[in-house]
Amino acid sequence: MPNYTNNIQDSKICVILIGLPARGKTLIAQKVVRYLSWLSIKAKSFSYDDYRRVVYGKSNELTLKDRYEECYRWVETAVADMIEWFEEEKGIVGVLDGSNHSESQRDKIEEICRKHDIKPLFLESWFDKPELITNNILDVNSNSPDYSAIDPEEARKDIEDRIELYKKDYTTLDTSTDADKTFVKMINIHQSIIINKIDTYLQSRIVYYLMNFHIKPRTIWLSRHGESMYNLEGKIGGDADLSQRGLKYAQKLPEMIQKLVGPDEQLTVWISTLKRTYQTSQYLPYKKLQWKALDELDAGICDGMTYEEIERQYPEDFKARDENKYLYRYRGGESYKDVVTRLEPVIMELERQENILIITHQAVLRCIYAYFMNVPQEESPWMSIPLHTVIKLEPMAYDTIVSRIKADIPAVSTYKEKGTSQLGESTDSSSSKTRNIITSAKVHSL
Amino acid sequence: MPNYTNNIQDSKICVILIGLPARGKTLIAQKVVRYLSWLSIKAKSFSYDDYRRVVYGKSNELTLKDRYEECYRWVETAVADMIEWFEEEKGIVGVLDGSNHSESQRDKIEEICRKHDIKPLFLESWFDKPELITNNILDVNSNSPDYSAIDPEEARKDIEDRIELYKKDYTTLDTSTDADKTFVKMINIHQSIIINKIDTYLQSRIVYYLMNFHIKPRTIWLSRHGESMYNLEGKIGGDADLSQRGLKYAQKLPEMIQKLVGPDEQLTVWISTLKRTYQTSQYLPYKKLQWKALDELDAGICDGMTYEEIERQYPEDFKARDENKYLYRYRGGESYKDVVTRLEPVIMELERQENILIITHQAVLRCIYAYFMNVPQEESPWMSIPLHTVIKLEPMAYDTIVSRIKADIPAVSTYKEKGTSQLGESTDSSSSKTRNIITSAKVHSL
Repeated sequence: MPNYTNNIQDSKICVILIGLPARGKTLIAQKVVRYLSWLSIKAKSFSYDDYRRVVYGKSNELTLKDRYEECYRWVETAVADMIEWFEEEKGIVGVLDGSNHSESQRDKIEEICRKHDIKPLFLESWFDKPELITNNILDVNSNSPDYSAIDPEEARKDIEDRIELYKKDYTTLDTSTDADKTFVKMINIHQSIIINKIDTYLQSRIVYYLMNFHIKPRTIWLSRHGESMYNLEGKIGGDADLSQRGLKYAQKLPEMIQKLVGPDEQLTVWISTLKRTYQTSQYLPYKKLQWKALDELDAGICDGMTYEEIERQYPEDFKARDENKYLYRYRGGESYKDVVTRLEPVIMELERQENILIITHQAVLRCIYAYFMNVPQEESPWMSIPLHTVIKLEPMAYDTIVSRIKADIPAVSTYKEKGTSQLGESTDSSSSKTRNIITSAKVHSL
Repeated sequence: MPNYTNNIQDSKICVILIGLPARGKTLIAQKVVRYLSWLSIKAKSFSYDDYRRVVYGKSNELTLKDRYEECYRWVETAVADMIEWFEEEKGIVGVLDGSNHSESQRDKIEEICRKHDIKPLFLESWFDKPELITNNILDVNSNSPDYSAIDPEEARKDIEDRIELYKKDYTTLDTSTDADKTFVKMINIHQSIIINKIDTYLQSRIVYYLMNFHIKPRTIWLSRHGESMYNLEGKIGGDADLSQRGLKYAQKLPEMIQKLVGPDEQLTVWISTLKRTYQTSQYLPYKKLQWKALDELDAGICDGMTYEEIERQYPEDFKARDENKYLYRYRGGESYKDVVTRLEPVIMELERQENILIITHQAVLRCIYAYFMNVPQEESPWMSIPLHTVIKLEPMAYDTIVSRIKADIPAVSTYKEKGTSQLGESTDSSSSKTRNIITSAKVHSL
C-alpha cells in the first residue's frame, strides 16, 4: 500500500535556478534540497560551480571571459549527471544551481527535461535592493571556495565584474513572455513572489517553503524536558511529572538561557502539550506556546513500558524497530517518519520565526535537529540527545553552527544503542554506550 | 497556556477584495472564510451587495449609474460593521467582498484598518481569459439574488454593462506602484499569482490556500469503514478487523461506487493506516493512497474501551467530553480540534484534487464533512454519520450539494447522543437516539 508521501514521487521535477551572481542561489538550492530530503523526498543539487572547479580549478585560474563563454562545457556535464541520477537513483527533485542567465540555455535544459519526463520548474532570484546585493557579495566572498585564498577586495571586484558580464544577455522571467513556463520569481528573497502555472502538489510545497523562509540571523535553542518520573523508571511515553532533578533543571534554565541569549534579546518558548515540557518551561520569563505537534512519538501499545518489557512482550517488534527505527511504526502508534510529517508545520513556522527555544521530547528533538543539521534518516533516530542539555543552532547561509551546553545537574541516560538487548540490564545505568554522531559539536558546561 | 492556533490570532487581518464584476470574488471570500473558520480562526465576509440589497432592494431597482456612483453609502456601512465585529466579537479575519475598484476607496479602507490596528491584505482577482469571464457571468447570472427574477439574457447584459462601467476607474495592483502594500493578485484564479510583502503566518496560510484551490467541477465521496469487530462490541479506537457485515459492505462497495461515479470516471481512494479502512477498500478497482492523517481520533487511555466503561472508570472525563466534545482531549490522546489540525494538509490536497473517495473513521469524517458543509464546531462532533453509507459532496460556486446513499447492509449504530448516559444500556442497540442535523441531505437507497 503506497502511502501519501511516496505517491507524490510520481512526478519528477527539475528546479532550474536563474539569477545573477550573488543572488543567494546556492543558499536557496541547499535549503530546498535539505527540506525535501527531510520529508523523504529524494532531492539533490547539482552546482555548476562545483563542476567547473573539478575541471578548471578555482575561478581565478580561468579568465572571466572564458568562464562566461565556456560555461556550456560544465553545464552540459551537470545536466547529464542529473539525468543519470534521476534514472539510476530514482531521484525526485534535481536542482540545477547556476545562473542559467540566457534563454537559449534554459530552452536547451527544458528540452532535455521534457525528453526524460521531468517537469521543469524555473526558480529565479531577482534582487533590486542594493544593500541586499552588497550583503550577498560579502557572503559569497567569505563562503565560496573560489575566493578562499584571495584578498577580499580582489574577490569583491571579481564578483562585481562577473555580475556586469552576466547582465549582458540576462533575461528575467515574465508572466507574459513566459506564460507557458512553470516558474517562481523571488524578488528580494520574499518581498514579492510571482508564481506561474504551478500545478502539482510537490511544486506547490516547494513554493510554500520558499514563501516562508527568511535570511535574517537568529538562533534556535533546543532542550528536552527535565528528567521525568518515567525516565527514572526507564519507561517510555506517558505524561509523567518531572523528577526532583528534572525540577532542578527547570529552576536553573532561566539563568542558563538568559546568560546564553543575552538580557535584551527576544525569545519565544515552544512546548508540547505534555506536563513535563510545561513544568520544564514554568520559570522562564518568556512568552510560551503549546503545540500538539511537539508531543513525543506515540509508542501505541508500548506506551508506559520499559524497553526491557517491550523486548520481552513484543520481541519481534523490538527487533524490527532496531532494524529500521526510522520507518518502524509502533502498533497503534507512530514511526519517526510519522513524526516528521506532523512536524512539518512546526519547521515551516520555525523558518518564519526569529529566536525560539523549543522544549520537547527525545524523538521529536532528533527530528528537528535532523532538519537543521541535514542528518540522514538512518542516523537521526540513533542520535544521542541527553537530558539537561541545551543545544544552540545558528543557521548560516551555507550551514548551521551547533553547540551543546550541559547543565551541571545529573540525569539518567535514556539512550539505547542500536543492536543492544535490554534483558538483564538496568535501564537506569549512566550509559557507557552513548555515542554521539555529531563530531563537530562544541560542548560547554555551565 | 495558549496553544499555537490561538496565538496567531494576535494579528487582525482585513482581506480587501479587488476585481471587476464576475471575477469569482464572492466564491473566494466564502472559501477563505470557511477554511479559516474550520481552523478555529474567527472569520467573516462582509458583502457590499448584501448591504446594498438591504437598503435598495435588488439591483434592477437602482440605475447602473446610481449603483456605481452611490456605492460609498453601503461600502461605508459594511466597513463600519466589520470594525464593530472586530472589536465586539474579537474577529480575526474580516473579508470585504466587493469590487473596491478605485484607489481612493482602497486608500480610505486602508486608513480605517490601520487606525484600528488591523492589517490590510489586498486580494485581487484578475481575469484575462475571455472564456473564464463568460463562465463566471453565467455563474453570477444563475446564483446572484440580484438576478433571480430576471430573464437570463437581460441579466447577462446588465453584468456586462456593469463590467464596462467599473473598468473606467479600475486600477490593478502592481509590484512597483503598490510595493508597500501587502497583496495577492490572482490571475485567472491560479494560473499566475503575484504575492507582495506577505509577512505574517496567517497571511501566508491564506495565500497557500488560495494557491491550491481550483474551480473545476468534481465530486468527493466519503464513507466510514465497514462495520468492525470493535463496533460490534461497542469499543472505540483500536485496529480491529471488519465484521462479517463489514466485509459484505466492502464487497458491495465497487458496484455501488461504479454506479454512482460512472464507468469511465477517474477516482482515487484515500484510506487511513488502520486495517478496517484498507479492508473496506480492498475490492475497489482504483488507485489507493494511505494517509496517517486519516487515522481515527486517538482516544488515549480510553482506546479499546466501551463508552460504558469510560463512563464508569472516568466519569469526569465522560462528562467533560459531553460538555465540550470539540475541545475535549482524551488523556494521552486527541480532541476534535487536534484532528482538524492534522487534517489540514488532507483538506489542502483535497482542494487540489478532482474525484476522490475517502474511506475513514467517524470523527475524521465529521471533521472533513464540517469543512465542506460549513458545520459549526459545536455541532460537528455530534453529527450522525452512520456506517454502510456513502456521502456524496459536490462543491459548487456558492455551496456544496450533499446526498447520502445507504447500502442495504445492516450495521450497529455507533452514535451516542449528547447528554445521554450509557450505564445500563446496550451499546449495540440500533439507535433510536440518532439525530441528523443535516436537514437538507437527500437519502437514497441502493
